[in-house]
This record gives sequence, structure tokens and C-alpha cells, in this order.
Amino acid sequence: MLAAIDHVGVAVEELDAAIEAFRDTFGLALVHRETVAEQGVEAALLDVGDGHVELLAPLAADTPVGRFLARRGPGLHHVAYRVADVERELERLAASGARLIDERPRMGIRGSRVAFVHPTSASGVLTELVQPAEER
Amino acid sequence: MLAAIDHVGVAVEELDAAIEAFRDTFGLALVHRETVAEQGVEAALLDVGDGHVELLAPLAADTPVGRFLARRGPGLHHVAYRVADVERELERLAASGARLIDERPRMGIRGSRVAFVHPTSASGVLTELVQPAEER
Repeated sequence: MLAAIDHVGVAVEELDAAIEAFRDTFGLALVHRETVAEQGVEAALLDVGDGHVELLAPLAADTPVGRFLARRGPGLHHVAYRVADVERELERLAASGARLIDERPRMGIRGSRVAFVHPTSASGVLTELVQPAEER
Repeated sequence: MLAAIDHVGVAVEELDAAIEAFRDTFGLALVHRETVAEQGVEAALLDVGDGHVELLAPLAADTPVGRFLARRGPGLHHVAYRVADVERELERLAASGARLIDERPRMGIRGSRVAFVHPTSASGVLTELVQPAEER
């Protein structure tokens, strides 16, 4: 079951500039910053209620977010839903015939366990499942 | 102040097919369906926690969502943040120099009052502010 919208992921060219812009325009505060080498990004989390905006800057051009920026420019990259048990949710999705990018969870930001579902199984939306560290 | 992520807006070609796909894949239930003529869409809301996925099908090709689909195909269209007072938030945004699509609120889905902020003021993200009807 999807418990909540955990975050929206936004691809940006320059992380510092985007953090400043979101702070100055929308009053959103930076709460966490981390390089997620496995995903090829430096990421920043800005709190919005109990969800987040996740700003993503590519570590190199030849990464998924780097290619996304080259193709589409900055903007909405993915949406993530919070789940209590990412393994169980992956099993349910596989049984429903969904196309998974990750068959098994991998490490996400802030010690979370995450898995991505292919956009073809979500009306064109790259979809992430997030099991926060504190609920493990 | 942005209180929460209210919803993500997803542009789709066929509303019924998308509603079924989100139900079958993610277990999300349809809670509201409405034609929002002013925005040129038929929209469906699926609850996720206290937020929503908003599926948007264009009423005609020559509408913002119709043009989005022609250009990019189905996928993430916008993100909406819940606010307590959309007029006050618009004033704050205008004072910060943000580029507004709507200088004044207009009617949104389910009696909400909404306003859009231009993607150039939000790292390429089309951004909506939503003041739900029940908080008016």
C-alpha cells in the first residue's frame, strides 16, 4: 500500500542555485544533502509538511539524471511514494505484472530503502517506492 | 507557507485506462472525477495518504495538457502544494519576484482555489498552489 507522497524529484543543473531559488521563492528549507553515488546524483531534501522536494544534480553527464537534463532540461523527474515494507510492495507489483527497474530494494537517501518502477507501468511517470530508515 | 504536497498532476491520453492502471498496479482508488473546463481537462483524483494523484486528460488537442502530451507524451505534468491562503501566498510570491501564471486565484477541482506559478520560477517545474474548499 502506498502510504503517502514521500517526495517529488526535480532534476536541476546546479544544486546550490536550485536550493537558494526554492528557499527564496517558496520558503522551503534545506534539511539534508547527500551524494548518492549509486544513483549518480548529489541530492538535497527540502521539507514540505511531512513530504519533501528532492533536488537532484547529476554527478556526470553520463548518468540517468544527466541524460534526463540533456533531453528535457530541468524539471520534474520522478515521484516517490512512502511504503512500510518495500520488499512486500515490490512482490505485489511484480505479481500485478508491473515492470520494475529494481527487482530488489537498494539504498536511497538518508538510509532509506528504495526501488524504482518503470514509467511504462505508471502512465509515463518514473515512480519510486521509499521505505524510510526509521520504519525499518 | 507551503503546508504539504497536495498532489502530483499526471497527463494521460485516456482517463479510464489510466484510472484502471493506477488501481490495478498501485491499488489507488478513484475518489473524485470532474471536468474542469477552464483548464481544458477531465481530471480524476486518486487518494494517496492525505495527498492525491491527479490524472489529467485533455478535452481537446489545443489545450495546455493536449499540447504537453503532443510534445512529451504522458507523464508528470505539475506538482501542487497545499496552502491555507492562496491569495496571501500569491502576494508573497509576487513580492519575491516569482513569475506567476495566475495573478489571482481561479477555481480548481472540488471547489478549491488554485493558482499556477511559471516553471521558470521553480527549476522547470510547473507549480500549483491549492487552497482546498474546506479551509476557505
